[in-house]
Amino acid sequence: PFSWTALDDRAVDTGRLLAMDAVEKVGNGHPGTAMSLSPVAYTLYQQVLRHDPTDPQWPGRDRFVLSAGHSSLTQYVQLYLSGYPMSLDDIAALRTWGSKTPGHPEHGHTEGIEVTTGPLGSGLASAVGMAFAARRERGLLDPDAAPGESVFDHHVYVVASDGDLEEGVSGEASSLAGTQELGNLIVLWDDNRISIEDDTNIAFTEDTAARYAAYGWHVQEVDFTAGGDYREDPRAVFDALQAAKAVTDRPSFIRVRTIIGWPAPNKQNTGAIHGSALGADEVAATKRILGADPDKTFDVDPDVLAHAQQVVERGRKLHAEWDQRYLVWRENNPERAALLDRLRARELPHGWAAALPEFEATEPGGKGLATRAASGKVLNAIAPVLPELWGGSADLAGSNNTTIDAEPSFLPEKRSSEMFPGHPYGRTMHFGVREFAAGLIANGIALHGLTRPYAATFLIFSDYQRAAVRLAALQQLPVTFVWTHDSIGLGEDGPTHQPVEQLSALRAVPGLDVVRPADANETAVAWRTVLERAHRPAGVALTRQGVPVFDRTEFASADGTARGAYVFAEADGGKPQVIVMASGSELQLAVAARERLQADGVPTRVVSFPSHEWFDEQDAEYRESVLPPSVRARVSVEAGVAMSWHRYLGDAGRAVSLEHFGASADYKTLYDEFGITADAVVAAARESITHS
Amino acid sequence: PFSWTALDDRAVDTGRLLAMDAVEKVGNGHPGTAMSLSPVAYTLYQQVLRHDPTDPQWPGRDRFVLSAGHSSLTQYVQLYLSGYPMSLDDIAALRTWGSKTPGHPEHGHTEGIEVTTGPLGSGLASAVGMAFAARRERGLLDPDAAPGESVFDHHVYVVASDGDLEEGVSGEASSLAGTQELGNLIVLWDDNRISIEDDTNIAFTEDTAARYAAYGWHVQEVDFTAGGDYREDPRAVFDALQAAKAVTDRPSFIRVRTIIGWPAPNKQNTGAIHGSALGADEVAATKRILGADPDKTFDVDPDVLAHAQQVVERGRKLHAEWDQRYLVWRENNPERAALLDRLRARELPHGWAAALPEFEATEPGGKGLATRAASGKVLNAIAPVLPELWGGSADLAGSNNTTIDAEPSFLPEKRSSEMFPGHPYGRTMHFGVREFAAGLIANGIALHGLTRPYAATFLIFSDYQRAAVRLAALQQLPVTFVWTHDSIGLGEDGPTHQPVEQLSALRAVPGLDVVRPADANETAVAWRTVLERAHRPAGVALTRQGVPVFDRTEFASADGTARGAYVFAEADGGKPQVIVMASGSELQLAVAARERLQADGVPTRVVSFPSHEWFDEQDAEYRESVLPPSVRARVSVEAGVAMSWHRYLGDAGRAVSLEHFGASADYKTLYDEFGITADAVVAAARESITHS
Repeated sequence: PFSWTALDDRAVDTGRLLAMDAVEKVGNGHPGTAMSLSPVAYTLYQQVLRHDPTDPQWPGRDRFVLSAGHSSLTQYVQLYLSGYPMSLDDIAALRTWGSKTPGHPEHGHTEGIEVTTGPLGSGLASAVGMAFAARRERGLLDPDAAPGESVFDHHVYVVASDGDLEEGVSGEASSLAGTQELGNLIVLWDDNRISIEDDTNIAFTEDTAARYAAYGWHVQEVDFTAGGDYREDPRAVFDALQAAKAVTDRPSFIRVRTIIGWPAPNKQNTGAIHGSALGADEVAATKRILGADPDKTFDVDPDVLAHAQQVVERGRKLHAEWDQRYLVWRENNPERAALLDRLRARELPHGWAAALPEFEATEPGGKGLATRAASGKVLNAIAPVLPELWGGSADLAGSNNTTIDAEPSFLPEKRSSEMFPGHPYGRTMHFGVREFAAGLIANGIALHGLTRPYAATFLIFSDYQRAAVRLAALQQLPVTFVWTHDSIGLGEDGPTHQPVEQLSALRAVPGLDVVRPADANETAVAWRTVLERAHRPAGVALTRQGVPVFDRTEFASADGTARGAYVFAEADGGKPQVIVMASGSELQLAVAARERLQADGVPTRVVSFPSHEWFDEQDAEYRESVLPPSVRARVSVEAGVAMSWHRYLGDAGRAVSLEHFGASADYKTLYDEFGITADAVVAAARESITHS
Repeated sequence: PFSWTALDDRAVDTGRLLAMDAVEKVGNGHPGTAMSLSPVAYTLYQQVLRHDPTDPQWPGRDRFVLSAGHSSLTQYVQLYLSGYPMSLDDIAALRTWGSKTPGHPEHGHTEGIEVTTGPLGSGLASAVGMAFAARRERGLLDPDAAPGESVFDHHVYVVASDGDLEEGVSGEASSLAGTQELGNLIVLWDDNRISIEDDTNIAFTEDTAARYAAYGWHVQEVDFTAGGDYREDPRAVFDALQAAKAVTDRPSFIRVRTIIGWPAPNKQNTGAIHGSALGADEVAATKRILGADPDKTFDVDPDVLAHAQQVVERGRKLHAEWDQRYLVWRENNPERAALLDRLRARELPHGWAAALPEFEATEPGGKGLATRAASGKVLNAIAPVLPELWGGSADLAGSNNTTIDAEPSFLPEKRSSEMFPGHPYGRTMHFGVREFAAGLIANGIALHGLTRPYAATFLIFSDYQRAAVRLAALQQLPVTFVWTHDSIGLGEDGPTHQPVEQLSALRAVPGLDVVRPADANETAVAWRTVLERAHRPAGVALTRQGVPVFDRTEFASADGTARGAYVFAEADGGKPQVIVMASGSELQLAVAARERLQADGVPTRVVSFPSHEWFDEQDAEYRESVLPPSVRARVSVEAGVAMSWHRYLGDAGRAVSLEHFGASADYKTLYDEFGITADAVVAAARESITHS
């Protein structure tokens, strides 16, 4: 039941005062939304959110996502008022080196922050992923509990800004949330009609509430301006949130009409207060309006703080009640409890890798096996032993080979299709043609904590989801991006679909592993290694076209894949005169070139090089054993721009690469016309030897 | 008035037959939509579109955008049937090397193709840009004509697929199209409810028509399934298009409910027919249904062709009538006619560069001038002499410094805000927080042909619009991306906002110029050079923070910017012992390091290196004069990953770079903590000298 006293009013105002003071102190930041959203955020943290400030990792907690990440103070202030490990000094250290209060909320840096936000739209889309995860995790751990009765049932709350809703990715994710009938997702839209360019009437005039209704959401409205005068109405917010919780078959959208920067006398309702300090005069004037002493900063009445921090008791009580139910669940479900413990530790089950397939060598000159097909076999082979592994494609399931065949799709049953039977706890996700949302949903799933998601599309469309990939890397999330059709080798679809610069561009992302296996067995080792590395994301680049499965009695073991690069074929006849490095489908060209060079008496080493990042992690001894500094004649072979290879090529090296866009034709023609051939490798090797 | 005979029915069926045959011949492609959209596309090309197949560049033409680019045959077949330079042999050469009929339509490759499509959503968003351009161009050339009476009035038609509407970017652009009241834009949605993963019920269940109504669009529906039996109804399509044209104050959205692959007996209404050949049996069965000979391929009845190609006469007549009006316009508007001729030739006016400002050197130790601020001054200085230059920001106008101050914004007048007075022919665009749409709208403006657009955001958010940047490069469009806040130098907003890998990742894009000027005068030369290069896009990376404006009596002229890299400060005391290369805000660190190295007797050359692409275009003599191969000791300084610099560094070189994400703090602290300092440059120089 809603309760509100004068102390709550003062706590709300305290939130505003701290926001103003913090921004004023550092001289920059975003005070306006933190001021006007204070009553909404306070109501949520105090009276709605199931959380325990003394245990920010409590598995039974609701999740709160501040999609409007620029308004980080909205959250920092509530963390402080709610009794999280967040002090007044922390707030005063806003946006300074090493503080708990960076410009935008950072997951893994500040307790109580569920997701790193700031790039607009990303928080909301990640929250959709959390809502997915909550359902799937419940299905793994407590599938038979009645709705709302499981210890794993909880809600995901989002505060979104105008900017979040202008970004297309929020629309992608919200449309999908409607399809998925995510009753556990509630979005509050701060409809303040001001963005950095001031009045949003210049760029944002749609009927957003009607748009959300069109997505199939439950839509409500709270209007603080409805009475003519501006009247903040926490009860109306509370009631709307309760009504939203009562709707369990649809996500909820609550439009809250506010005035940004309320009640700053001169700067409220302006773009200026969105992203700049108010200035001393305006701060003082606002403090006077709020009945605060203009001469004091970071001034919190102990009574107000004590009142607000009563939420700690509320949280402990919720937690304690939950603990009892949780223990009952554990007793009744010992196997699932063991699974939960394993998943929480992000450990893989003992001996799981035995489920990985080994692939037989294909016949020379035959069709080979596309690495995307090998990947599909790997996924289906390990699916039974790794229930935490799930994922899907942005409408390219058959092309990406990412469907787990033996299980239904993750879908409300009524959304089942002939091709894809669905179940709410199903395993294969269908993102639709929404690559960016797919990436952020995968991030949200990983953030939620227990499962290991993958999201698939063509490598070219990693461009659409690049900001999601970056956020996965920044947050060190174990998300796997499956990118098939990884070169001009996709053939006829032409230059709009042929990645050329993507491999190098993705290798530039700090904290991302880019892996491009050369054959089916490297693909298996790639998946094994990716899954063992639970502390960071990976992108796996896979071929459309068939490539040879190499005979590993003739060539080195595919286990070398885990080290990023390895000697695939040693030079015959002594020390290598040249080293040919290749990734993916181009390894076969390196092998063919080596044969010719060896026939001409040139000792040639072939290095299979599936991952720059994994190789760079090896110790110097290993790295020098693969690429001895004394062998300066080197060639790289990859059907893409060479930018990322120059480090390994050195001054004498030569790249066989593609420095321009592709074309529409069968892939063999393209390789020939663009000079990605064994001949070209031989010529490059000879040139490099000459210059070494 | 609509007219239709049995020959038209046969022409529609001919379109289907050719689509099937072409895909069958090459063995892959997308027949389904081309089959079912045949009556829609035929009606459009025959009876609605104002075009002259004998002059695909006719300025008075309507624009047709096939956003569903995978269904390229939809357009190729109409180009053939309409009498464009497209033969039956061309269609039979679908998706083969060198043909006019690549897998996806390619602008600049095939006459009659207005835009390269394939990446879903991009066509529709580019079409919004074309509709913007049509209004702005009319404003420049014929502002006083009554609505619909100008020779520059025309429509932009789009055919969009389910996938186009699932992609967020189409939502971004469509919301903005509503705000802009683009009465000249008409979108036909092929609502066939099938995508690659078959039934779209698994991922696309929203009420899309209601969503477009929420955007403020005029919405109509044509349902070929309405009568129970499937009945294609070209008249209903025609009538809807006429009704859409009659609505001049809003864009129009026409939902056309079709069955993909109609009338293939077994594969219609399946995902299989979306992207694969039908197979010989299904082709034969479909031919029988259509009354065609199953044993014949690419079989076109001359009567049908002659009937369809009557549209040539219709087009010539439209063109001739237009020519008369055009000549009257030219006579009455000689100055504007001269402007048109100049714009069509993509020439800049004589002496325009005299309008560029020169910036005075700032005081040592002073605040300097941010290059974004310099860029804003440049834009406002050249705006009066270059009316074709216009652009805007994705809600960061004040931060990007991209507003042309003296002119109103490009807005319906009723959308004016206090900060931004608007006019339908205005100059500054407001994209809202929609970076991807901003990029594609800019592409569409450039494709429309006459003006020179720029689109601005923070460099970090180039990630959101990367697919648009790539399409600009692929299409060789003169679009300028203005990317400010180009490093950790933006400070407190933290790692979500600090670009680290973006410069290298963008340099990887073929055909894109990335320019990062070091000071205000380099910024002016950068703009000059970008505008002179009308054959390709550029991205200009600019600082948030102040940087010194160098004294060019002490250092080399900023004109060297146009050559990509130049000797900024020569080594004292003979041949350089080390070369320090730097871009943007890091040039000052190179200069400071040089002072120390010179003081220690190390002759040190500083190379200002604003653009890799421009430098690579210089002849070998120039390049070797700047970077003599004999000087192997080299250092690069850029506050980002070093990947793109290794080519210039060579084996002995050392990078002062940032190989991890940033943090939230003031920028000076960040540079110090992350070791992007003059000290680090000195140390790197010494190390490089040791190893050279």
